[in-house]
Amino acid sequence: MSIATGFVGLGAMGRGMCRNLYRGGLLRSVWNRTAERAREFAAEFPVDVAGDPAALASACDVVVTCVSADEDVLEIVAALQPGLQPGTLVVDCSTVSADTARTAATLLARHGVQFLDAPVSGGIEGARNGTLAIMVGGPEQAFEQARPVLAAMGSTVTWFGPCGAGQAAKAVNQIMCAGIIQAVAEAMAFAKAEGLPLDALIETLGKGAGSSWYFVHRAPNMVRGEYPPGFRVRLHEKDLRICQHMAARHGVKLPVVETTLRQYGQLVEQGHGDEDISTIFRLKDALFAVQDASGKDTRRS
Amino acid sequence: MSIATGFVGLGAMGRGMCRNLYRGGLLRSVWNRTAERAREFAAEFPVDVAGDPAALASACDVVVTCVSADEDVLEIVAALQPGLQPGTLVVDCSTVSADTARTAATLLARHGVQFLDAPVSGGIEGARNGTLAIMVGGPEQAFEQARPVLAAMGSTVTWFGPCGAGQAAKAVNQIMCAGIIQAVAEAMAFAKAEGLPLDALIETLGKGAGSSWYFVHRAPNMVRGEYPPGFRVRLHEKDLRICQHMAARHGVKLPVVETTLRQYGQLVEQGHGDEDISTIFRLKDALFAVQDASGKDTRRS
Repeated sequence: MSIATGFVGLGAMGRGMCRNLYRGGLLRSVWNRTAERAREFAAEFPVDVAGDPAALASACDVVVTCVSADEDVLEIVAALQPGLQPGTLVVDCSTVSADTARTAATLLARHGVQFLDAPVSGGIEGARNGTLAIMVGGPEQAFEQARPVLAAMGSTVTWFGPCGAGQAAKAVNQIMCAGIIQAVAEAMAFAKAEGLPLDALIETLGKGAGSSWYFVHRAPNMVRGEYPPGFRVRLHEKDLRICQHMAARHGVKLPVVETTLRQYGQLVEQGHGDEDISTIFRLKDALFAVQDASGKDTRRS
Repeated sequence: MSIATGFVGLGAMGRGMCRNLYRGGLLRSVWNRTAERAREFAAEFPVDVAGDPAALASACDVVVTCVSADEDVLEIVAALQPGLQPGTLVVDCSTVSADTARTAATLLARHGVQFLDAPVSGGIEGARNGTLAIMVGGPEQAFEQARPVLAAMGSTVTWFGPCGAGQAAKAVNQIMCAGIIQAVAEAMAFAKAEGLPLDALIETLGKGAGSSWYFVHRAPNMVRGEYPPGFRVRLHEKDLRICQHMAARHGVKLPVVETTLRQYGQLVEQGHGDEDISTIFRLKDALFAVQDASGKDTRRS
């Protein structure tokens, strides 16, 4: 017996995830704020386009949402409500704060509807290939109920605890990405200033204990000076604001997060907000360029 | 025709490297400041123990040195000199500054002796197993001449350019290690404060784009609160001072390096200098502990 699944939010990620739900025989209905996109999707994959979120909700056992920001999640949850029946399950794959997840869960609980926060990582490629990592928070029994739906979209599906735990796990990942891109960019700027052969360096150090996914996959961007997304600065900036907010609830400022947000602000101002986050190399490289141009030759003297 | 190789510096790294030179049929003679260690080694592997560095130098085609600090390298080079003949090659596997490498090279060049800086990474295990990454700077023809010796000790042997380039490449690696351990420790402290199941987190995020060698291999230390070396704080601190010195030649302070050195200073003061660098988690964790204890419960409220 397949689970009738509705999908809200056909952005770059959503479309890929939706395709995999369709292929898994789970997709009943879609809705998107810009209706054109939903019609385009339905033209390719014969699926019902709902007139509004409530209509979608009333036809489905599970509703998956994948939108951009905290306010979008709460807005969609409100719009779903008139159509939701007790026992329906809402699974939100957006990256938002754990607070927003808990607010959504509380609103829905009044109607006998359970909520899972289930942010994903793995990018557009992971969404398309069904190889996302999905980090889930919420009632464990609801997680088990949603598992076939989650398994159609991701290859690593993990329950982390009560509502908000999925968002917390995703935040941990985004903090690491920030610190690592700082490390890689700073190290590569130093390497360039030292006149090292950068491709050979990536090849050698990529095998060692100082290596990381970002070093192997994104340091080559820094060598070429090209930063195709990838993971856009603006999106990581949004995610790091969530981390900042979550850390603030503990009364803590995370240095890696604060530093990276400051630098992303500069990059956005300079017009690099839609480049891959490896563009942060521009700032580190400029540090050396200014200094090395300011007089003495500091290389191999 | 095998290359008669002498080895100076039978520390934890040196002993492993020396064993692999012996097995490769290359080891002619050893010398160590604390003579007892050289005798111990010779008791296990029948090899000549030189009376002093000059005697070792006069019996060998290639002299490999592996000592602790910049001043040790220059001292050993001076002590080798009376025995060195034109055409002999000195290969220094210590991690020191590129400046020290260039000074040593200049001193030796006066005697017709070539010098390679060839710092290693891969730790004691890599030294024992012959799987070190060796990063080499110096005349390319000298590198080719030393290749059989290097290949006996490491599995990745790369020439990076003129004298100092090996040390520069190693410095790049140490900068990355600093930034990554910061990222991993900060993310794990946040994860703990959020009450996430940490083993499941390492398992899931370890497969994703936020992953790194340090996350997979050292985040478990942070979960257990045990920090066996590994890579000792004191040693990384020494290496980061070299990075600091090299960056200062460009007029640049590297934020990741400065921050990490400050924190290592605290850790050494607290008596954790001989623990693995993942012990930096103590400082990040304390940040949350202080705040979360100071009143309101900030978890899942």
